[in-house]
Amino acid sequence: MYFTKMHGCGNDFIVINDLENKLNNLSELASKLCHRNFGIGADGIICVKRSSLGDIRMEIINADGSYAAMCGNGIRCFAKYLWEKDIVKKDKINIETGDGIKIAHLNINNNKLENVTINMGSPEFEPDKIPSLSSEKVIDKAIEVGNKKYNITSLLMGVPHTVVFGKLNDFNVEEGKVIEKYNLFPQGTNVNFVEIVSREEIRVMTWERGAGATMACGTGSCASVVAGNTLNLLGEKVKVHVPGGILQIEIQDNKVLMTGSAEISFEGVCEI
Amino acid sequence: MYFTKMHGCGNDFIVINDLENKLNNLSELASKLCHRNFGIGADGIICVKRSSLGDIRMEIINADGSYAAMCGNGIRCFAKYLWEKDIVKKDKINIETGDGIKIAHLNINNNKLENVTINMGSPEFEPDKIPSLSSEKVIDKAIEVGNKKYNITSLLMGVPHTVVFGKLNDFNVEEGKVIEKYNLFPQGTNVNFVEIVSREEIRVMTWERGAGATMACGTGSCASVVAGNTLNLLGEKVKVHVPGGILQIEIQDNKVLMTGSAEISFEGVCEI
Repeated sequence: MYFTKMHGCGNDFIVINDLENKLNNLSELASKLCHRNFGIGADGIICVKRSSLGDIRMEIINADGSYAAMCGNGIRCFAKYLWEKDIVKKDKINIETGDGIKIAHLNINNNKLENVTINMGSPEFEPDKIPSLSSEKVIDKAIEVGNKKYNITSLLMGVPHTVVFGKLNDFNVEEGKVIEKYNLFPQGTNVNFVEIVSREEIRVMTWERGAGATMACGTGSCASVVAGNTLNLLGEKVKVHVPGGILQIEIQDNKVLMTGSAEISFEGVCEI
Repeated sequence: MYFTKMHGCGNDFIVINDLENKLNNLSELASKLCHRNFGIGADGIICVKRSSLGDIRMEIINADGSYAAMCGNGIRCFAKYLWEKDIVKKDKINIETGDGIKIAHLNINNNKLENVTINMGSPEFEPDKIPSLSSEKVIDKAIEVGNKKYNITSLLMGVPHTVVFGKLNDFNVEEGKVIEKYNLFPQGTNVNFVEIVSREEIRVMTWERGAGATMACGTGSCASVVAGNTLNLLGEKVKVHVPGGILQIEIQDNKVLMTGSAEISFEGVCEI
């Protein structure tokens, strides 16, 4: 089986062309291929499938075998793959995902793909949407958890996110483990520690619910900028430094656009 | 650059043919290629080089850029690579390593390589060889470290090893972190927790000095069998279960022979 190993800000994927729909048992395949010592090694596999709703369909299966509805870093890799392999040679691609159709804008310069912009949808602050048990929106709310005080802002950006502003040196990303389970959030929350560099630049460390520290969280970067904009700490176009690279986030008409790179690490072939 | 991703009991390597001696700055290359998110991902790279002393020369560079003199799991992968790629098509190969010439015996059945046996050399119990600060050989010596009592046996098997026998459920491999730095060992020690299944079978968890828990430690498996044989707990031919697979260890005329598999995970090509 031929595959392409790619990453978006260090979040890495094995991308496989399955337009012929020949692969079976993708859960088991993902677990096997994603093993970092015995397999190829990745955070997940992404399969290219035919779509009757959009130009193409993306199927992401995590290393643990679970299906992911959508992934901001993954979909950039997917879009680059389509371009580089001449599968869909357009600069605006309608991609069917488990979270509906997503539009990828491919930013092309001299026939070379520079980066990809994804419309990540709209944020939601309503408590029942996040969900949170709070009677009102959670914006700059003072809480105490694990003997430490935080001011938190919570929103749904595809998944539940909580944002804490401060100096990154004052936080250990592992503190997210405790905030994740704070009793306000019945389904837990992802946690973003955010340092403001200027109104146009931030640094973010994300604790992913149930998973831990990540190289780059696309939805977390979006949520951080939306929270900062809501608190009037940030403008509407912000450069976000994550451990694995840089993402550009822009708020337009209550939609959040995320722009970032996608890289091919290597091409490979293996037996399955 | 073409490469082959291989593993021996989960200890994984990027194997590269550099007979033309075209690669530069292997330390930097190893760090880059071995990164599990941004690169190919591996514990180290292995380069095939020409030798004036043996049939061929093996150069292993760890993921952190440091050179390894020798590696039991790596050399099996190296030998299989030579066979599969028709570089040295012999069943007994003299391999030049940073630790001298090692002889690899390729066990071939129906023209298919089944596994590889490596002569790992002789163990040394002398304190100044290990080195340990003990005035006598450290054999079944009772010590107390980290508020826990252990009976330890220490020897040099290429690198310093300490062996502790007991039930694996009674140990956490992290205890090795404390034993590693016990004041008897000026250069530290690798630590092997060993459970005896029978005189011909053991289970081993190894804490690698300065590195942590490993999938499979070749020298640790050898040291464990030698220690068990010295204490008359084991015979001279022992099956060793490590977290990443199975190794067969045999003591012959004070030499230790290690037999194990080597697997190709995939073939790849990348830009460097």
